Amino acid sequence: MKINGTPYRTIWPTSDGTVEIIDQTRLPHVFATLRLTSMRDAEFAIRSMQVRGAPLIGVTAAYGVALSMKHHASDAALTATCDMLAKARPTAVNLRWAIERMRDFLSPLPASERAAAAWLEAGRIAEQDVEINESIGRHGLALIRALHQQKNDAVNILTHCNAGWLATVDWGTALAPIYAAFEAGIPLHIWVDETRPRNQGASLTAWELAQHGVPHTVIVDNAGGHLMQHARVDMVIVGTDRVTATGDVCNKIGTYLKALAAFDNGVPFYVAMPTPTLDWTLQDGVREIPIEERAEEEVTHIDGLCDDGQLRRVRLTPQGSKAANYGFDVTPARLVTGLITERGLVAANSDAIRSQLKNT
Amino acid sequence: MKINGTPYRTIWPTSDGTVEIIDQTRLPHVFATLRLTSMRDAEFAIRSMQVRGAPLIGVTAAYGVALSMKHHASDAALTATCDMLAKARPTAVNLRWAIERMRDFLSPLPASERAAAAWLEAGRIAEQDVEINESIGRHGLALIRALHQQKNDAVNILTHCNAGWLATVDWGTALAPIYAAFEAGIPLHIWVDETRPRNQGASLTAWELAQHGVPHTVIVDNAGGHLMQHARVDMVIVGTDRVTATGDVCNKIGTYLKALAAFDNGVPFYVAMPTPTLDWTLQDGVREIPIEERAEEEVTHIDGLCDDGQLRRVRLTPQGSKAANYGFDVTPARLVTGLITERGLVAANSDAIRSQLKNT
Repeated sequence: MKINGTPYRTIWPTSDGTVEIIDQTRLPHVFATLRLTSMRDAEFAIRSMQVRGAPLIGVTAAYGVALSMKHHASDAALTATCDMLAKARPTAVNLRWAIERMRDFLSPLPASERAAAAWLEAGRIAEQDVEINESIGRHGLALIRALHQQKNDAVNILTHCNAGWLATVDWGTALAPIYAAFEAGIPLHIWVDETRPRNQGASLTAWELAQHGVPHTVIVDNAGGHLMQHARVDMVIVGTDRVTATGDVCNKIGTYLKALAAFDNGVPFYVAMPTPTLDWTLQDGVREIPIEERAEEEVTHIDGLCDDGQLRRVRLTPQGSKAANYGFDVTPARLVTGLITERGLVAANSDAIRSQLKNT
Repeated sequence: MKINGTPYRTIWPTSDGTVEIIDQTRLPHVFATLRLTSMRDAEFAIRSMQVRGAPLIGVTAAYGVALSMKHHASDAALTATCDMLAKARPTAVNLRWAIERMRDFLSPLPASERAAAAWLEAGRIAEQDVEINESIGRHGLALIRALHQQKNDAVNILTHCNAGWLATVDWGTALAPIYAAFEAGIPLHIWVDETRPRNQGASLTAWELAQHGVPHTVIVDNAGGHLMQHARVDMVIVGTDRVTATGDVCNKIGTYLKALAAFDNGVPFYVAMPTPTLDWTLQDGVREIPIEERAEEEVTHIDGLCDDGQLRRVRLTPQGSKAANYGFDVTPARLVTGLITERGLVAANSDAIRSQLKNT
């Protein structure tokens, strides 16, 4: 999508065999790109959340494998590379999916061919992500159009965290239907959950919607229930990091609370889900999905822009108070109206998921 | 309660006829007191949230009337004072309750007696608040003790916003049972919702619990649902700004989301409610209680302590993204396990409220 009028992707190969990314830790106040020249750069970019969002993490890991193969392409190097990259973020299934795809693709090849092949395969994963998101956008657009026709007024959509184009290679997952509806001329207004502790909503979703001209309002994560009680939300669309075979949805911490409020107020709650995000091995999301615990400092401190133009970190909590930082939660399938996939809308239950997606 | 070993209240009269308060806008990083010398000082303290919390707002307004009467004690001055103070915060019913009590008490008196009488009456309101909170603490203690006996391990209590002693004259409402249980030697651990946008949990609740030595952990507002899904919360206790005759509870924005999660996970959800907080005139909280909309800047910016020791305000959102800031939400009575009042535990329904509290 566009930044200040110029089309961008979140990750792109350069002519000299490195990879560039947008440094998302500096948004929304500073727009800067970074060059990844090694697997360790890619691993650091994932771990430090310079890149984030399940699909983009997967593509970055794939390019990480490709960068590694340029230097060491033995079986041992391939194994070590894949193992290290897989540990960069524990929750995202796309990360493991992309790494396994690279491993399966590269293992049968002679070491001498792996570097070039890895580069091409990483590129194919990136293109496939863009295609998937365009399809999610098309299927989600139909839902938004129906709401607009029913209401005959601007459609109010609430989203949590950032599942926009910044979370993918392009288009986004949860925001793809919103961009598609915006391009189709449907009047929209987006409620953007700020999404503590890392504020991906306030800093990334708000920024990309602003760059694209989509009307939106930032709210604290506490506000969505109140807005739904007062019929100010027509639908919720969120992304996901992992979906079980039964339709339980793991997504950014706080998603479950919004799903409860949507259910309590009869607001449709949709999850935009690229099918690689499905984890066929899991049945019970709350019990089985490990939830990443992140650094306490993400809760106790926050970064922002000072009046003097400097980016600064400030402490929010008293000295001597500890903090806990759970990255994700699980929304049970019973609260999910539907999964918007690249293959169409799928109900969040085992039967529908199996029958519509099993041959993916 | 104690600050660094010294007993304090949140508001106290001085020997020279002024009033001192703790400036709560500078906590938790700076502990400072302020002197109120006029009704306008009191009105500003309420409006700017140097004092906050329904009971403390009421007492501050009462002292505001008393400060005003020292200068002008005519009927017209009394009316103007009460009208101006009542507008300082639109949602808190205690504010109006305290002002009406002062007006009713002072109106029949000759103007010459009003200053001295107002001073005494404000003091009585403050003492009554302390007594009410001690009683709430006693009744809540019984609930915590029962949970402890059942569990035979530390009791995990989640609280939202600050309904501690900083929100009252002393003890607090939601935290009074916690302080009482702590004094009784019951092992406790408190999950402190940071409570965006103003972070009263991270800055005030965490601070007062730390000062008193109560074990606690600060979490983002998004985390409570996840913790409840994993049986990490044994009960929720929150304060309230207004309760309807039917038991609907108006409290800090986000309370409704925690109540939904508690209900979904079978976690008891209690509201500590001084009976002056009851609004007998209201039947339907969601429809009838006006929700204060506050400045956008409370969402887009945040204050904190920089590494260099300076308190600074940083911007969180991109330029060009607007924000909305709803101060409160309403939790329907069906989600409330019980109201902990100074007269005992009361079920959140019209019959119980009428039969147990109507003769208050």
